[in-house]
Amino acid sequence: MKSLPLLLIFLLSCLLFSISFSSPPEESVSSHSHVLPRPLIIEYPDGVGEKENYNDDQRELLQLECTSWRFAVESNNLRPWKKIPLECADYVKDYVTGRAYKMDLDRVSNEASFFARSVQIGDDGNDVWVFDVDETLISHLPYYAQHGYGLEEFDSVAFDEWVDKAMAPSIEPSLRLYEEVMSLGFKVFLLTGRSEKQRDVTVQNLLNVGFKNWDKLILRGAEDHGKLATVYKSEKRIEMVKDGYRILGNSGDQWSDLLGSAMSTRSFKLPNPMYYIP
Amino acid sequence: MKSLPLLLIFLLSCLLFSISFSSPPEESVSSHSHVLPRPLIIEYPDGVGEKENYNDDQRELLQLECTSWRFAVESNNLRPWKKIPLECADYVKDYVTGRAYKMDLDRVSNEASFFARSVQIGDDGNDVWVFDVDETLISHLPYYAQHGYGLEEFDSVAFDEWVDKAMAPSIEPSLRLYEEVMSLGFKVFLLTGRSEKQRDVTVQNLLNVGFKNWDKLILRGAEDHGKLATVYKSEKRIEMVKDGYRILGNSGDQWSDLLGSAMSTRSFKLPNPMYYIP
Repeated sequence: MKSLPLLLIFLLSCLLFSISFSSPPEESVSSHSHVLPRPLIIEYPDGVGEKENYNDDQRELLQLECTSWRFAVESNNLRPWKKIPLECADYVKDYVTGRAYKMDLDRVSNEASFFARSVQIGDDGNDVWVFDVDETLISHLPYYAQHGYGLEEFDSVAFDEWVDKAMAPSIEPSLRLYEEVMSLGFKVFLLTGRSEKQRDVTVQNLLNVGFKNWDKLILRGAEDHGKLATVYKSEKRIEMVKDGYRILGNSGDQWSDLLGSAMSTRSFKLPNPMYYIP
Repeated sequence: MKSLPLLLIFLLSCLLFSISFSSPPEESVSSHSHVLPRPLIIEYPDGVGEKENYNDDQRELLQLECTSWRFAVESNNLRPWKKIPLECADYVKDYVTGRAYKMDLDRVSNEASFFARSVQIGDDGNDVWVFDVDETLISHLPYYAQHGYGLEEFDSVAFDEWVDKAMAPSIEPSLRLYEEVMSLGFKVFLLTGRSEKQRDVTVQNLLNVGFKNWDKLILRGAEDHGKLATVYKSEKRIEMVKDGYRILGNSGDQWSDLLGSAMSTRSFKLPNPMYYIP
């Protein structure tokens, strides 16, 4: 009987923890509000979610919940989100700085490479592989390491300052794929949500880290600003198809790189649990 | 120096392990071969993959590799596969029989429910939610428990015998979603890869476990046999759109339930690391 209070505290903690994960706040939402970013989970009152005090079972549950959250991100099941869940901050940091992220990047590159080698390329030079740029070819981990790996809300001013340095490192498995699809005879189109104003730093950054000889680099023009990425990228892919290109492969870290109109024959989703672009 | 042989054995094991995961066998493949099922990873010679002998680091690596493989399944990055990787047999069993699978099913149901409540339903009764059946509404875990949770190649005779028993249990979070979208005013269309010959047992099984009042149950007719699921399901969705329906939501455990033509506004991918349908 001495352990009853402890048991009750434990059960209560489990309950609070479970509520915090499974019941995001109801919101009054209008039609199509699902495309507007909003926080996944509200921040908790002090005392809830202090992981230092977790016992082994709570830690295991946290690991399971954050893995489940990450699965939902990667399979495009989540409503739009602006920040990673507070409780998963350590989990996301461990993931992107550890072996698992590298392993996932390697696997998606290998699978894309396998597909690229398996398809017949026409001799008209019209077979295209589309690559997104940020978190697909080059990595902003050095920036996100300074900004909680997604725990802070996106700061476009600070981010653009970082982009202007043109110092984002390459994602090596993507560089390998990039060079391979080029050598197989694909045209390579880079389709990025960056602004046309960032063309020079983008070119410089890509060249700095080994990407070269792309066939097109498409950035947002004045008329594209304010469009959802899915819409903007779909429009650009529709133009490619109208120009006679066949989009066989598409690599991107956001589902908004891959879904919409004029979708590629096969899409490859690179992992990114740090941020979401609708 | 005494530990040198041990170190060598460890390094060799790591190497073998790493090769087994990172280099699936090259195959001579023809155009569009990516849509034909083929094993993900070949089986290994005896002695490789005996997990009982793994040390802690090897076990951790195995856990990471199988998680990475599962991510690749759920984000649709893998080439078609017929069996789960031999090394991940315990991992997949632990996942589907443990808390993680339930958690993922809950999350996708909750996210779908949030979306369903957020969209405006027209008053013409033409807003549709499409559900796949197997591993979406009802579960074949009792069958797969007898067949290695995906480790054995698909046996259509044994599987059909199980289906004919009409004893597949419901997936509770999906039943919750099913009832909710119906109460919100969606038409509910069930679109399954099962044959028209299985209509009666399918109806019986669904009713047995609480699914009722669906608006349509679409099964493969004689003309649909041999079609890839993506093609068959796209054709059926195109018909729905031609009939004036708006497909707002679609729930399925296979990407072939969700991708193709006449895609829904939002798709929800239920987890399934046990089998793959192209």
